[in-house]
Amino acid sequence: MNILLKNMDIITGDALGSCIKDGNVAIKDGIIYSVGKLSELADDFKPEKIIDGKNRLAMPGLVNAHTHSPMTVLRNFADDLSLEEWLFNKIIPAEGLLSPEDIYWGCMLGIIEMIKSGTTCFADMYLHMDEVAQAVMESGIRANISKGPLVSGVRGNPGISVDEEGCTGFFNRWHNNAGGRIKVYVEIHSVYLFDEGPLREAAALARQLGTGIHIHVLETLAERETSIKKYGLSPVGACLEFGIFDVPVIAAHCVHPDADDLDVLCRKKVNVVHNPTSNLKLGSGIAPIPDMVERGINVCLGTDGAASNNNLNMFEEMNLAALIHKGRSMNPMLINAGEALRMAAVNGASALGFHEETGCIKKGMKADLIILDTDKPHLCPMNNPLSAVVYSAQASDVCTVIVDGTVLMENGELKTIDREKAMYEVEKTAKRILHK
Amino acid sequence: MNILLKNMDIITGDALGSCIKDGNVAIKDGIIYSVGKLSELADDFKPEKIIDGKNRLAMPGLVNAHTHSPMTVLRNFADDLSLEEWLFNKIIPAEGLLSPEDIYWGCMLGIIEMIKSGTTCFADMYLHMDEVAQAVMESGIRANISKGPLVSGVRGNPGISVDEEGCTGFFNRWHNNAGGRIKVYVEIHSVYLFDEGPLREAAALARQLGTGIHIHVLETLAERETSIKKYGLSPVGACLEFGIFDVPVIAAHCVHPDADDLDVLCRKKVNVVHNPTSNLKLGSGIAPIPDMVERGINVCLGTDGAASNNNLNMFEEMNLAALIHKGRSMNPMLINAGEALRMAAVNGASALGFHEETGCIKKGMKADLIILDTDKPHLCPMNNPLSAVVYSAQASDVCTVIVDGTVLMENGELKTIDREKAMYEVEKTAKRILHK
Repeated sequence: MNILLKNMDIITGDALGSCIKDGNVAIKDGIIYSVGKLSELADDFKPEKIIDGKNRLAMPGLVNAHTHSPMTVLRNFADDLSLEEWLFNKIIPAEGLLSPEDIYWGCMLGIIEMIKSGTTCFADMYLHMDEVAQAVMESGIRANISKGPLVSGVRGNPGISVDEEGCTGFFNRWHNNAGGRIKVYVEIHSVYLFDEGPLREAAALARQLGTGIHIHVLETLAERETSIKKYGLSPVGACLEFGIFDVPVIAAHCVHPDADDLDVLCRKKVNVVHNPTSNLKLGSGIAPIPDMVERGINVCLGTDGAASNNNLNMFEEMNLAALIHKGRSMNPMLINAGEALRMAAVNGASALGFHEETGCIKKGMKADLIILDTDKPHLCPMNNPLSAVVYSAQASDVCTVIVDGTVLMENGELKTIDREKAMYEVEKTAKRILHK
Repeated sequence: MNILLKNMDIITGDALGSCIKDGNVAIKDGIIYSVGKLSELADDFKPEKIIDGKNRLAMPGLVNAHTHSPMTVLRNFADDLSLEEWLFNKIIPAEGLLSPEDIYWGCMLGIIEMIKSGTTCFADMYLHMDEVAQAVMESGIRANISKGPLVSGVRGNPGISVDEEGCTGFFNRWHNNAGGRIKVYVEIHSVYLFDEGPLREAAALARQLGTGIHIHVLETLAERETSIKKYGLSPVGACLEFGIFDVPVIAAHCVHPDADDLDVLCRKKVNVVHNPTSNLKLGSGIAPIPDMVERGINVCLGTDGAASNNNLNMFEEMNLAALIHKGRSMNPMLINAGEALRMAAVNGASALGFHEETGCIKKGMKADLIILDTDKPHLCPMNNPLSAVVYSAQASDVCTVIVDGTVLMENGELKTIDREKAMYEVEKTAKRILHK
């Protein structure tokens, strides 16, 4: 459908941090056909739908570059605990009770929450990924889905080995499926969960498939210590050594890199996902993001799962990313509003394999964008739209969401998903597995 | 009006962190008449209004213990700058152009934003405080308003001296006015802005009026250094020496206390206001809040003004207070959800002079409470209401606000204030003074 956003203020989200006053965005066949003043609109563009810009602000859809969407089921179930108590006594036992159907509904609720809060693309890593892919396909959102080939019991082997067949099958089923909205990467959970052999094999599988890897790196100090003890290498060094960094990589967390690690991340063009809420909440620490930005590392943002956040709200991550480094370094000029928005949108799109396809409002890009209702007391006066979006806005200001040129939400109403059904199903799962 | 909240989940906000499932709250003559199960409701209570509890959660109204409400006018006007550039080249020159009427409307917009985001009480410090008091009276919110007696030019004296007459007049006009909703404290901006003589006189005036003092303390490291150079004392030591801590005190920030300062704050029962967003955004640092809590200091929360936040959203402050200390100290058990809520409500009420009057949902307290709409994807499943409120909720989940037994907002609709008029007036002011 051809859509015209008319007389709307537009934050383009490009490197220049451009804001267009009273502009227009023309969308044709899912692609941004033009952006600019109404007078510049091509004569041959005939909109079938016009969205009026009064009290509206358009901006790029946000990209949640690291989450475990089905963990919505475990939201607010285990908080304020030590990492060990949280993970081994609460989360892992509960996860063991999740069926593929539970995963599907948990993911669907996560997608609902993401659409409602302005996220148009996310990177997911969890169990039963066919169900996740199914939910992505049906909902209309864009996603990078990673499939873990490292499993026990393949070919009668009781240890961990690479399920090449299962992973390749998944890749062939879903990569570039849903009109190109889905990319499939190989999941390697982390270097601390597996041994060198399987890690090397999994990295080789990603190379063979011609795709990337999604991995947790340096989330905690303990992870660094374990890796050094086991391999004589930091987790970053181990990734480099085992070939994990020879393909495009989404590296979540990176809270505790040293200078050598930063050199490697930069040289190997690793995409780093900053998860400020999760890293704070689990007591992991604060990643040295300003150093990474200064070195030119592509830093993007993620919420992590709802069990360690406890929501999937990218407006909060963007706000936090712009705040904590200023406070920690006692320098109010670090990570300005434009940088925070780039982390939350265009940098994430690049990291997830959609480089130059989506992430900002620019002619020729896929039409993934969101519209905010600015008729809100906390957005008044609108002295600076970019600051307003990063420092004042709430996720609930998002009223309309477009992905791939399709309207997924309009004035708060979801167009492709049954919200009540998903909430009902997830509540049922939570009752079954958590409140027995 | 007698109001009954019926079959509603209730977070009482008391020291025990109690949650009542399917409870009721009876409100009579502005006072909480009973809290508990419906079966326990007194026979003589006849409600004139019933609020049904389906998909609703009641909790104490939040207390914003340090703000400058009229600074909404300057929202998003100057961000990502050095403190000096921000304060001296942007904020102070703009403030010089504000008329009393601008202050009135700026405050009214601030009150609208606070009500919409679940704040029922705030502590304000700014210019033209009669206009602030007027807006508080008209809107129905509760507030501690501080008036600064330290001005230049009193009695022909070109230096700073104490305007005892002006301050006493203000105190007599407003203290305990609006049915007890307004308390007046003496504002002493800080010890670095004035000399010892006027500071001692202002403290004496507070003692003479039998009221408290609202002051900025140790917001920055530079403030500590200046004070030591000037007085041979830290700002906390100077407050102690000059008699400022001999009355109830609201001490905003306290980012950089040493062990001696913490001893003084504890011994003198100073109420500390943690302003996490503002302290991060201005690069001031992170206050050692867990140390203070462990020592038994009454810590509450504030947004600071909209020029350094850039909103007045106490849900964000509560969330941040529960997150940043975990991350900074790498200990996920610091400042749990119950503690964060107490900081955001009952501790603030005590600090603002409403001790045992308001701040939690308890029989005999003034009826200041808020109701959240829990039919939201990010609040599903409701595994733990207290965690949900602190870690998952958004300010926009607040649907109904009651102060002093009067409904100020119901299902999102403001009952006492013209939102459009206030937004129009503040936009006009911003255009006049910022976008000349």
